Amino acid sequence: MQPKAKRRIVVIAEISIHPIGAGTSVGRYVAAAVRALSKVPGLTFDVTPMSSVLEAENIGTILQAVEASHRALRSMGAKRISSSLRIDERLDMARKMGDKTRGLKRLTRART
Amino acid sequence: MQPKAKRRIVVIAEISIHPIGAGTSVGRYVAAAVRALSKVPGLTFDVTPMSSVLEAENIGTILQAVEASHRALRSMGAKRISSSLRIDERLDMARKMGDKTRGLKRLTRART
Amino acid sequence: MQPKAKRRIVVIAEISIHPIGAGTSVGRYVAAAVRALSKVPGLTFDVTPMSSVLEAENIGTILQAVEASHRALRSMGAKRISSSLRIDERLDMARKMGDKTRGLKRLTRART
Amino acid sequence: MQPKAKRRIVVIAEISIHPIGAGTSVGRYVAAAVRALSKVPGLTFDVTPMSSVLEAENIGTILQAVEASHRALRSMGAKRISSSLRIDERLDMARKMGDKTRGLKRLTRART
Repeated sequence: MQPKAKRRIVVIAEISIHPIGAGTSVGRYVAAAVRALSKVPGLTFDVTPMSSVLEAENIGTILQAVEASHRALRSMGAKRISSSLRIDERLDMARKMGDKTRGLKRLTRART
Repeated sequence: MQPKAKRRIVVIAEISIHPIGAGTSVGRYVAAAVRALSKVPGLTFDVTPMSSVLEAENIGTILQAVEASHRALRSMGAKRISSSLRIDERLDMARKMGDKTRGLKRLTRART
Repeated sequence: MQPKAKRRIVVIAEISIHPIGAGTSVGRYVAAAVRALSKVPGLTFDVTPMSSVLEAENIGTILQAVEASHRALRSMGAKRISSSLRIDERLDMARKMGDKTRGLKRLTRART
Repeated sequence: MQPKAKRRIVVIAEISIHPIGAGTSVGRYVAAAVRALSKVPGLTFDVTPMSSVLEAENIGTILQAVEASHRALRSMGAKRISSSLRIDERLDMARKMGDKTRGLKRLTRART
């Protein structure tokens, strides 16, 4: 049996970033942003086809991740950068990002 | 060896939906939206902690998914519904949603 | 005294769209999308520096606006198109898009 | 004749925020967030029916605005907070937020 992940009050968010005007294939830029995320202290993240899901103990860390992503694209010479961030800050219940999908799967199965 | 997934021109998108004013725990509503997605013909989707990633051969199918999600929440009695959709329509290259994360993982490893 | 705008149950939304890989100045594409919005029957809209605010009696009209915007950019030769849509569907109260900012201005002044 | 607004390299962004589980009428919370924006040094903003458009000389100020908005809702007792931010950082051209809509209006008229 796996040890249960400890549930704490965390902020879960999602970021997406790309340069505008640097060709249609922007994977190189997105990879640089992801490498930047991996250096933000206190940040856990997971990459999906449309964004990176972020988890941190406070909003400040999430916002550092946004700043680090923009910095990564600027340092590659991007002339225009578009990013999108959604934050889900929940204060009444401890949870981790995996809880959201696990709970959802249980509920989805429950009533089909 | 697994057969390679065929790469076609597809639209990849991401949707997130929740009721406003139905309490802080909205998983029951999100699950109803996910069940609605599973009934949209021609739609492939995958659930993440912050959204559902959608893939379809055309934008019409993606927009049907949005309509179906709102309908699901309305039919549960939601009085106010907030949704967010991001579409990535790429016309110069065939790909599937898995390609985006695979390519990214390769690029991220390449230069750390 | 101005006649009061009739308040109906409407869906209010916000769309933003741009091509990726068509240079950093994308105003020509955004203008084409705005012209496309002006031809969607039943749609009222207003342009802001970051998006177009949409109002319609049902979600179907909002989604037609999304489809028309993508079509406009495709017909200009865009190879990759990124769009973002947020919908606020409120079913318990009739309002128009102007009501949201008016109410907000009143509340903001109320307690500074 | 009005003096021309000076054009500088600025970051233009858009934020939307609301509590989840605090009823369907959330204007009181949105007003508190707007009041918080008005106290962020170096931030210019404008309210639309779906969001607040932000302008600042750097991303740090934009991110302070996000943090201040969440703080405002937390201090009103919100138990769950959903926010959405889109950033348009352009480095090759000086502009102000009014330029985006003005240029767009000119382009829209140009070819109908």
